[in-house]
Amino acid sequence: MTTRITEVVARDIRFPTSLTLDGSDAMNPNPDYSAAYVILRTNRPDGLEGHGLTFTTGRGTEICVAAINALAPYFLDADVDQIFSEMAPFWRRIVSDGQLRWLGPEKGVIHLATGAIINAVWDLRAKCEQKPLWKLLVDMTPEQIVSVIDFRYLTDVLTPTEALELLRAQEVQKGERERAIQASGYPAYTSSAGWLGYSDEKIRTLARGTVEDGFTAMKMKVGLDLGDDIRRAAIVREELGFETKVMMDANQVWDVEEAILMMKSLAQFDPWWIEEPTSPDDILGHARIRKEIAPIKVTTGEHVQNRIVFKQLFQAGAIDLCQVDSCRIGGVNEVLAVVLLAAKFGIPICPHGGGLGLCEYIQHISIFDYVAVTGSLENRMAEYVDHLHEHFVHPARVENGRYLVPLEPGYSIEMKPESLEEFEFRPGSAATPV
Amino acid sequence: MTTRITEVVARDIRFPTSLTLDGSDAMNPNPDYSAAYVILRTNRPDGLEGHGLTFTTGRGTEICVAAINALAPYFLDADVDQIFSEMAPFWRRIVSDGQLRWLGPEKGVIHLATGAIINAVWDLRAKCEQKPLWKLLVDMTPEQIVSVIDFRYLTDVLTPTEALELLRAQEVQKGERERAIQASGYPAYTSSAGWLGYSDEKIRTLARGTVEDGFTAMKMKVGLDLGDDIRRAAIVREELGFETKVMMDANQVWDVEEAILMMKSLAQFDPWWIEEPTSPDDILGHARIRKEIAPIKVTTGEHVQNRIVFKQLFQAGAIDLCQVDSCRIGGVNEVLAVVLLAAKFGIPICPHGGGLGLCEYIQHISIFDYVAVTGSLENRMAEYVDHLHEHFVHPARVENGRYLVPLEPGYSIEMKPESLEEFEFRPGSAATPV
Repeated sequence: MTTRITEVVARDIRFPTSLTLDGSDAMNPNPDYSAAYVILRTNRPDGLEGHGLTFTTGRGTEICVAAINALAPYFLDADVDQIFSEMAPFWRRIVSDGQLRWLGPEKGVIHLATGAIINAVWDLRAKCEQKPLWKLLVDMTPEQIVSVIDFRYLTDVLTPTEALELLRAQEVQKGERERAIQASGYPAYTSSAGWLGYSDEKIRTLARGTVEDGFTAMKMKVGLDLGDDIRRAAIVREELGFETKVMMDANQVWDVEEAILMMKSLAQFDPWWIEEPTSPDDILGHARIRKEIAPIKVTTGEHVQNRIVFKQLFQAGAIDLCQVDSCRIGGVNEVLAVVLLAAKFGIPICPHGGGLGLCEYIQHISIFDYVAVTGSLENRMAEYVDHLHEHFVHPARVENGRYLVPLEPGYSIEMKPESLEEFEFRPGSAATPV
Repeated sequence: MTTRITEVVARDIRFPTSLTLDGSDAMNPNPDYSAAYVILRTNRPDGLEGHGLTFTTGRGTEICVAAINALAPYFLDADVDQIFSEMAPFWRRIVSDGQLRWLGPEKGVIHLATGAIINAVWDLRAKCEQKPLWKLLVDMTPEQIVSVIDFRYLTDVLTPTEALELLRAQEVQKGERERAIQASGYPAYTSSAGWLGYSDEKIRTLARGTVEDGFTAMKMKVGLDLGDDIRRAAIVREELGFETKVMMDANQVWDVEEAILMMKSLAQFDPWWIEEPTSPDDILGHARIRKEIAPIKVTTGEHVQNRIVFKQLFQAGAIDLCQVDSCRIGGVNEVLAVVLLAAKFGIPICPHGGGLGLCEYIQHISIFDYVAVTGSLENRMAEYVDHLHEHFVHPARVENGRYLVPLEPGYSIEMKPESLEEFEFRPGSAATPV
């Protein structure tokens, strides 16, 4: 029988994380990790549903929910096989709606909503096929992968034909790589230890814990005050020595020249990368920073709005690593476009995981990149943050610094019904007020 | 007495323009010209209100209304003098809200909402001072202008000190220019004749009318089909000859290489500029197109999300003209930043006027640019579209191809109460359904 979407439910889910300063950084001092959460109900007698979310940080989640509701008519009554039989045109229709497009295009709230609902469709598809998302993708032929990507605005740099060649060249090794990654897991790094709101003592304890937990790389927040950054970086290096990779994340607080100055001061701690040194919109600014502070790597991505900006970050030599976000851009389809663009330019992907459900999502993307696109783990790590996983039906699992390959059908993003119920936002409920 | 904001009202206003295809183009086939409309009520006994809107195209206006409501707490109970005594920090707080920022930053829905509400504050301020907005700006000292601009992410290219020098150099000529522009009006061009949904005969009649109406420049839509574009351009040139400037607008439908090919075919009609040849996010793409199709000018702006993207468009030599939009970016404050950036790079501004209320807004910006920033009308024109002005209390007036300088207090954006009432969107009301 065909699987038809019979209902699109959008929910506003907020966790009061600002009370403990988990997730705090120089630009986001008090986030409430939240989600605009989508459930696609179907006509299936087994009650099969597709789930998706876009990560938000508290207030404004209701705006994303409104945007999901505005997109819902495209999905309601749609046949899942039909959607996937012409996936790229379907995706383009969503992002090109003759009226909603004005609100982006392909950026901000409307694109966050697109990410949530498109990911829910992929979750549904993967569950229909009884496969984890990464396996669904890995089992698709190069032609099938290319057929789900909208190459609009990319063809000056990557054509469908080139993408096809790139994927075909990897075909024969897929089986072997799949077995390898299942055996070894995918490398992770941790950001749990370095939030800006934590005390020095908590940073010290957590830094020590990262090595005990088997991580070989950790990230710390910087950017609010250089003196603080130096003191905290010294603590981290005292605990870890210089063998462990330490990355720094400024969350966009600096102007271009300021970023260069700051990183010259912080270079003594041998940061492996500086993340978001300035505005995510400043392609040329990143290129200049990278040139000035080499060999420190420069990276960005959690706020990079779409494939067109990634294209230019690669063209301009602006970043060393690509931190694509799984729901900032328009869901799996556009993530695949970015993964292929990155491969063409030889830029490793290190997806963004600092948020609710993002670790659950990105493990699938990184595994697909390894098995079907690049076959490389060099300079590649998926971010891991040890928060809020208990709310997921099949949470991401990291052991000894590596993601265990998920085996359950779907995109791993489905939350427990009792968590959705408990943390659904209603004025006056758990999340902190304005 | 102090003027205090006592209520923030956000309304969803939609006109069913898709029924006549006014405003139709290759990317927006059936827009319903709409607005997320803000009223700031005050404690003033005379009932003084600040009005602002952000232009939208139908569905999704409710999302912008939700975003305005999310920003409202920053404005409610605020004292207008207090806001203006620390305007740049106030503006930065709005765009940097520790939770709402995640939805942008400074782009898409949340930034459209910022534009509407910030513009309403300026309207209120100008009304308090009993001046049209352009005059309020012109009468500000260079120090005062610089004090309302947030230079974050701009200082690698434009510092407050440079901006100050730039403005000071123009001080002495302001009085003379003010008299001159009041006497002559500000040059306009028309886009009313060239919508894509119009028949050949309607295009011919309207093109003839543009000359009769005193315009020396008109814009036509292209991009859906090259054969149609050639036929319609031929009609326009038959009617106008080659003395009148004809501009073309592709509304983002082309990829980079496609844009170059298409414009080589359309070059025979001597287009003065090609507007939005590709994605507004593609800075490097515009730079390449410009290089390939010179001397045809390249321009964009109505979808350029913020000052950071404009900065790079200028840095990369990507555009010949700057079509800044008055509410796509974060209101007057950010528009001033772009006007100063453009002046630094010697790029003329030709603001975007194709939408509800945009002509009302942009006349103030262009006049300010002339009087206080550049003193030049060379290659400068403000767009004019002859639609929906009847709904405004003080509509923009164009005679003989020139905007008459507005003299009424405020930002000219206040709509008639009866229009707001009649066209307020309620499910099932005048605007067309999905």
